[in-house]
Amino acid sequence: MKHKTKVGLPPGTIKYTGKKGGTPLTLNYVEYNLESFASETFEEVRKALIHKAKDNFTQWYDIRGLHDEAFIQRIGDVFEMHSLALEDVADVYKRPEYAEFVNGHFISLKYLQYVEGEIHIQNVSIYFDQGFVLTFQEHEDDIFKPLRTRIEKSQGRIRAKKADYLTYAIIDFIVDNYFSVLDDIEIKTEKLEESLMTDVDTFERAQIFPLKKDLLKVRKVIAPLREALNMFSKSDSDDIEEKTKIYVRDVYDHTISVVDSLDTLRDILSGLQEIHISEMSMKMNKVMQFLTIITAIFVPITFLAGIYGMNFQNMPELQHRNGYFILLGVMAVLSGGMLLYFRRKKWL
Amino acid sequence: MKHKTKVGLPPGTIKYTGKKGGTPLTLNYVEYNLESFASETFEEVRKALIHKAKDNFTQWYDIRGLHDEAFIQRIGDVFEMHSLALEDVADVYKRPEYAEFVNGHFISLKYLQYVEGEIHIQNVSIYFDQGFVLTFQEHEDDIFKPLRTRIEKSQGRIRAKKADYLTYAIIDFIVDNYFSVLDDIEIKTEKLEESLMTDVDTFERAQIFPLKKDLLKVRKVIAPLREALNMFSKSDSDDIEEKTKIYVRDVYDHTISVVDSLDTLRDILSGLQEIHISEMSMKMNKVMQFLTIITAIFVPITFLAGIYGMNFQNMPELQHRNGYFILLGVMAVLSGGMLLYFRRKKWL
Amino acid sequence: MKHKTKVGLPPGTIKYTGKKGGTPLTLNYVEYNLESFASETFEEVRKALIHKAKDNFTQWYDIRGLHDEAFIQRIGDVFEMHSLALEDVADVYKRPEYAEFVNGHFISLKYLQYVEGEIHIQNVSIYFDQGFVLTFQEHEDDIFKPLRTRIEKSQGRIRAKKADYLTYAIIDFIVDNYFSVLDDIEIKTEKLEESLMTDVDTFERAQIFPLKKDLLKVRKVIAPLREALNMFSKSDSDDIEEKTKIYVRDVYDHTISVVDSLDTLRDILSGLQEIHISEMSMKMNKVMQFLTIITAIFVPITFLAGIYGMNFQNMPELQHRNGYFILLGVMAVLSGGMLLYFRRKKWL
Amino acid sequence: MKHKTKVGLPPGTIKYTGKKGGTPLTLNYVEYNLESFASETFEEVRKALIHKAKDNFTQWYDIRGLHDEAFIQRIGDVFEMHSLALEDVADVYKRPEYAEFVNGHFISLKYLQYVEGEIHIQNVSIYFDQGFVLTFQEHEDDIFKPLRTRIEKSQGRIRAKKADYLTYAIIDFIVDNYFSVLDDIEIKTEKLEESLMTDVDTFERAQIFPLKKDLLKVRKVIAPLREALNMFSKSDSDDIEEKTKIYVRDVYDHTISVVDSLDTLRDILSGLQEIHISEMSMKMNKVMQFLTIITAIFVPITFLAGIYGMNFQNMPELQHRNGYFILLGVMAVLSGGMLLYFRRKKWL
Amino acid sequence: MKHKTKVGLPPGTIKYTGKKGGTPLTLNYVEYNLESFASETFEEVRKALIHKAKDNFTQWYDIRGLHDEAFIQRIGDVFEMHSLALEDVADVYKRPEYAEFVNGHFISLKYLQYVEGEIHIQNVSIYFDQGFVLTFQEHEDDIFKPLRTRIEKSQGRIRAKKADYLTYAIIDFIVDNYFSVLDDIEIKTEKLEESLMTDVDTFERAQIFPLKKDLLKVRKVIAPLREALNMFSKSDSDDIEEKTKIYVRDVYDHTISVVDSLDTLRDILSGLQEIHISEMSMKMNKVMQFLTIITAIFVPITFLAGIYGMNFQNMPELQHRNGYFILLGVMAVLSGGMLLYFRRKKWL
Repeated sequence: MKHKTKVGLPPGTIKYTGKKGGTPLTLNYVEYNLESFASETFEEVRKALIHKAKDNFTQWYDIRGLHDEAFIQRIGDVFEMHSLALEDVADVYKRPEYAEFVNGHFISLKYLQYVEGEIHIQNVSIYFDQGFVLTFQEHEDDIFKPLRTRIEKSQGRIRAKKADYLTYAIIDFIVDNYFSVLDDIEIKTEKLEESLMTDVDTFERAQIFPLKKDLLKVRKVIAPLREALNMFSKSDSDDIEEKTKIYVRDVYDHTISVVDSLDTLRDILSGLQEIHISEMSMKMNKVMQFLTIITAIFVPITFLAGIYGMNFQNMPELQHRNGYFILLGVMAVLSGGMLLYFRRKKWL
Repeated sequence: MKHKTKVGLPPGTIKYTGKKGGTPLTLNYVEYNLESFASETFEEVRKALIHKAKDNFTQWYDIRGLHDEAFIQRIGDVFEMHSLALEDVADVYKRPEYAEFVNGHFISLKYLQYVEGEIHIQNVSIYFDQGFVLTFQEHEDDIFKPLRTRIEKSQGRIRAKKADYLTYAIIDFIVDNYFSVLDDIEIKTEKLEESLMTDVDTFERAQIFPLKKDLLKVRKVIAPLREALNMFSKSDSDDIEEKTKIYVRDVYDHTISVVDSLDTLRDILSGLQEIHISEMSMKMNKVMQFLTIITAIFVPITFLAGIYGMNFQNMPELQHRNGYFILLGVMAVLSGGMLLYFRRKKWL
Repeated sequence: MKHKTKVGLPPGTIKYTGKKGGTPLTLNYVEYNLESFASETFEEVRKALIHKAKDNFTQWYDIRGLHDEAFIQRIGDVFEMHSLALEDVADVYKRPEYAEFVNGHFISLKYLQYVEGEIHIQNVSIYFDQGFVLTFQEHEDDIFKPLRTRIEKSQGRIRAKKADYLTYAIIDFIVDNYFSVLDDIEIKTEKLEESLMTDVDTFERAQIFPLKKDLLKVRKVIAPLREALNMFSKSDSDDIEEKTKIYVRDVYDHTISVVDSLDTLRDILSGLQEIHISEMSMKMNKVMQFLTIITAIFVPITFLAGIYGMNFQNMPELQHRNGYFILLGVMAVLSGGMLLYFRRKKWL
Repeated sequence: MKHKTKVGLPPGTIKYTGKKGGTPLTLNYVEYNLESFASETFEEVRKALIHKAKDNFTQWYDIRGLHDEAFIQRIGDVFEMHSLALEDVADVYKRPEYAEFVNGHFISLKYLQYVEGEIHIQNVSIYFDQGFVLTFQEHEDDIFKPLRTRIEKSQGRIRAKKADYLTYAIIDFIVDNYFSVLDDIEIKTEKLEESLMTDVDTFERAQIFPLKKDLLKVRKVIAPLREALNMFSKSDSDDIEEKTKIYVRDVYDHTISVVDSLDTLRDILSGLQEIHISEMSMKMNKVMQFLTIITAIFVPITFLAGIYGMNFQNMPELQHRNGYFILLGVMAVLSGGMLLYFRRKKWL
Repeated sequence: MKHKTKVGLPPGTIKYTGKKGGTPLTLNYVEYNLESFASETFEEVRKALIHKAKDNFTQWYDIRGLHDEAFIQRIGDVFEMHSLALEDVADVYKRPEYAEFVNGHFISLKYLQYVEGEIHIQNVSIYFDQGFVLTFQEHEDDIFKPLRTRIEKSQGRIRAKKADYLTYAIIDFIVDNYFSVLDDIEIKTEKLEESLMTDVDTFERAQIFPLKKDLLKVRKVIAPLREALNMFSKSDSDDIEEKTKIYVRDVYDHTISVVDSLDTLRDILSGLQEIHISEMSMKMNKVMQFLTIITAIFVPITFLAGIYGMNFQNMPELQHRNGYFILLGVMAVLSGGMLLYFRRKKWL
């Protein structure tokens, strides 16, 4: 019932579509420039002072938990966000997209994780304009902590850059994780392949399906990001520096690379399926041949034995002194002939 | 015989292609601006006063029932509609499309519903120009009632907007329903998947087909809407405000998202088919192995029993004191050997 | 040997590629404007007065039968047709195309009909310029009669329009027929589906193939028309009015709609194939299970019967008073056990 | 080892990649204008006087045999050909391509022939500029003879045209042959289809494969020609007249038409495969049913016979006066029941 | 774990992703112009004097071994490379790409080799600007030696050209090798095909899979190169001469040609699979028919023998003088009838 909750609402309505009663609302505030850095975490977000862009500073509001629609509205009012951007922020099933509004830029994408062998897909929305970046997540995990630390320790060139570069850094951070997920899928695929090669009998073809489904799910949320990043990198907005676009182009290439690899993996999985089908049908053939050989050898001689088990009064062979031994000989010749026939047919 | 009724008619002929004797003609009239709102329903449409755009008002004529071709012509005359638009209004099998005429804009799309497990596809045509919107439907259900209520209660920003925004709101309302249908298909797919995983034997592969066919039908009517909305959102007509185009872009993205999901669902259904085929052939293999084992164990020893059931006068083994017991031993060894052979071949 | 007749001829050579000795040459001449209408049929075309565009009149020469290459050349000379257009007129296997020459516009497309359950594909070439339209067909059927009647009776707006609109009307007439063929294919598909659902055993999968082949054939001749009509509707020639292009755009949309439907039908037919394969293999499984059950129940107890049919002198069980009845009991227990085993395995 | 001979050579190196010791080098020289025509064949090409474009004449050098790399270099020097064009001339595995150099235009394409049921693919390179055309072929067959005759006899408009039109005429000549090959493949396909329909048992599915492979091979060499001819027809070089481009456009359409037909044929062949698979599995089902019926009828009654063949001392039925006849009755009822069961299951 | 090592690092971080402890760092330095040529190899790269472009010379630094991230940084500093280019140089899993930075041009592609029947994929990055070219490889093999020798011996026109042409020459050298790999795959495919045609029974379908996987792997690294070379050939940078672009276009065509051939090979391999499946199922049918024939002939007559092996006291046939011989006759007729039945069904 993912989408039904939203059906019938006026466009621009903020409606949280995720799981109810989930994450408590948390807000991480960071402000920095080349010289200074300050960070604060608000458990009670309502106390957080939210105000738009100070001069000479880049602000980053990282909001975790989306169930408080009133709070999202408040954020939207402060930063003059378009109502459609606000609606999209609260919709955790949003397809990755890039949109430019009069007062800012909106990007939505998915954060991927393998948790206990299962793909977890989490929506992340980013809104930025001159001087500030807002990020919205459903989960309470502080996934951006390494990035904050990096800013604080001034690793990379991030402190010298503006909000557009911070946005890029956040996207890059998320896309980096795609490679990690890709690695996991590759390892699983290789394990499957190995187990198929080692022992075809115990291999369960059905194992391929969940992996294929993971591929489908992952591809579905990554593929649209390509187009979104392409639009981002070609934006002619003044808010985005030319230099930043080179970086966005780079992360765009990463996304293409991930999708390419996903497609190759899918083809490999299909190949595994084909091998297994092939091996199984080869085995089936062997089983059938064995059955046929057994049948063809014993059925005729069993019939002969049946003949001489009959109780007719007048059966001359039965009185013959060596009748029994002659019959045994005939049976040996018959089954030997059959064996030769099967060897010639390469069934043996 | 969907299309044959129209074959051979001159272009621009109004010809109702739906089911005969269906819906009585109904007309819902709404006029509103920021300050005032008025609504009226006419069961006898001929009495309805139809007149073109008043100043400062947005008019919405919602016509339900299309069999009265003369009435459609009358509407067309009042609003100076192009004859091709009129022809399309009456053709319930029209492919979704956006077309701009000198005097107005025409959009046709499909309203989807799951009724008792079956997809119902209903054609909706929209024609608008400065100051008025016309909607045409085949069915008598008042599907736009929630939208009218929303306008009356002035939810969202609709009362402050013009006909172009109302058109968008109607499209958005219809596309919203696609998500609802999508949810239903997803639930059905998950049920199928679950039933397959729970009990492969009782799963009926044929159940996948109607779902796949639903997917095909739905995709066929939604996919062309993408292009139509794309054209709408890129129109350079003066009748459509820039702000509205952002909204149309948004509903365009929704449509893409629905088509993406439909494609993913189709791939998942194909995956289910593959699993089932795989499981069935695995089972077939097991059955054949079982048959072969039974045959291979009993046929040879049955043959031996047949040998000593023969009535030859001279069969020395029969006179042997322990002949019977020795034979039983031989049989036990033979079948034991076979069992070992099958265990080594991993058939057991 | 469809194409071989033309191989090696210089480009621009008029070479009739259809069946020899076919249609007698017939010419239908129509001239009209808003006020007047005249029509004439010439069985002996050589007597027909052929002359280029009168002022204020639209002329339509409808030529049926293409084997008279000299006559086609004569037509070409009068109307100053490009030699490539003349070559194409005589080639009944021409792929649908739109081409603009200095002196006129050339369109070739296919007229489709279901005759006694078989698709008949007939080539139609149209050449027009200011004031006149030429149509060329292979067959003698007067397929355009309804259109001529419509012009005479002045239905639609055709009499007020020029040669470009007449060209459109002819294309629209032909494309309209595609819907009729589409309906026939849909009906056949539905019948197949029904017969599959009703009785899977008597369904012949091979029936799907001719329908699929029809789909292929039809798609092959309609798909290129899309591009041709697209080019027509975007032509910047002065000979084509803007208003006419809107109509051409409309028939272009019809063509897309037909191709969409053909693709959907192909997917449905593939689905039918899959269902049938699935059902057949399910049935095969049932047959094999039945065979295995019969074998597994009777083979062991038959073996037991064989044992006690042996003629060893020393077989103590045979002398036992209730030996026979005990054995019957053992057999009953054995086969009962087997039955239980199969029930637990859900084979029964 | 097709390509390996060239690996590691500097770009622009003339390296013949075809079969060694093949064709003796032959050169056909033609010069013509509207008034005059001259032709000469040189077996010893080194004696041929090669010189660039005379005024008012169109020269055509047709070179057959490519192993003499020095000679190709000499040609290249005389006509100032780009080194990449020379390299491509000598590479018989060159993919069809159109390239414009400063001093001329290069086109490479494939000449196709069915020789004794096998596709022969031969590379043809064309280089032209104002006043001259060079053609290079690997084989010694004088395939262009009909074209030369046509020029001599002044058929078509070729004598009044320039080198660009001659180039077109050569391409058209080669593409015309594609239709001939297409006809052959179509005939083979139809024969296969017929033989499948006539007698499904003797049909060898493996026959489809070589035909499919031919299709693949042919498609691979024709498909790239589309793009090449498209570029040719859109060239803005002064060397190519507008009128000629209309002709090139025409042959471009032919190429598309051939590729379309190849794709349709491939689909038809796949359809044949599906039919055959379907028929074979139907037959398999019948065989299995027959086996099962035989088994199910005889195994139980054989068991009964086995029972009464046992030698227990105390078997009351054996003493019964009509025991034998009662048993025969029981057996008849049993097998009759089985037959009824199978009839009801529609196995009979 | 290919990608995981990089996850979480700031963009622009140089992080070697290849195998640890691999290649010792080697540097080949070449400088040349039309008159002079000098070359030097540094085993201890730190001693190498690295300096940017001398006037009138083209410099080529060929770096082998990428584990020394500090050294790569040093190179980057000297040649003012963009940090993203440096990051990509160290990432051996980089997707082929072309990127233009302010100070230079970056191209990454893959060098392919078949070593002992296995595809080896090695990343090569190229960075060039006016006067110098840098190449980076993971492996220690001096793959570019033939190219250096060619420059030294002044083969081709390379000494007269600039850095852009050297870059082209390097790419051409690498792409040339693709043809060599393609040849190997073609030979393997042909061997498979031959072995399938010669003896269908011993053919192992599973052999097709590794070849298909090789195709997938190769295609994945070559396909993106097309787009990269296309961008390279269309660059409007002043650093790249028009003449060079013609060459780049040529190598671009080669890449397309390779991808085409790979796709055709994949289709041929799929065809082989289909043939084998077909042959196997034909054989299965034969086996089943044989089994059924044996069963159908012997089971009924064995039953008859069983009948007359029963011990009923009152079985009149047993006393009949010729009972035994009559029964033998009946059996002969029965099995003869069965044989006729099977011959008529074409099972024999």
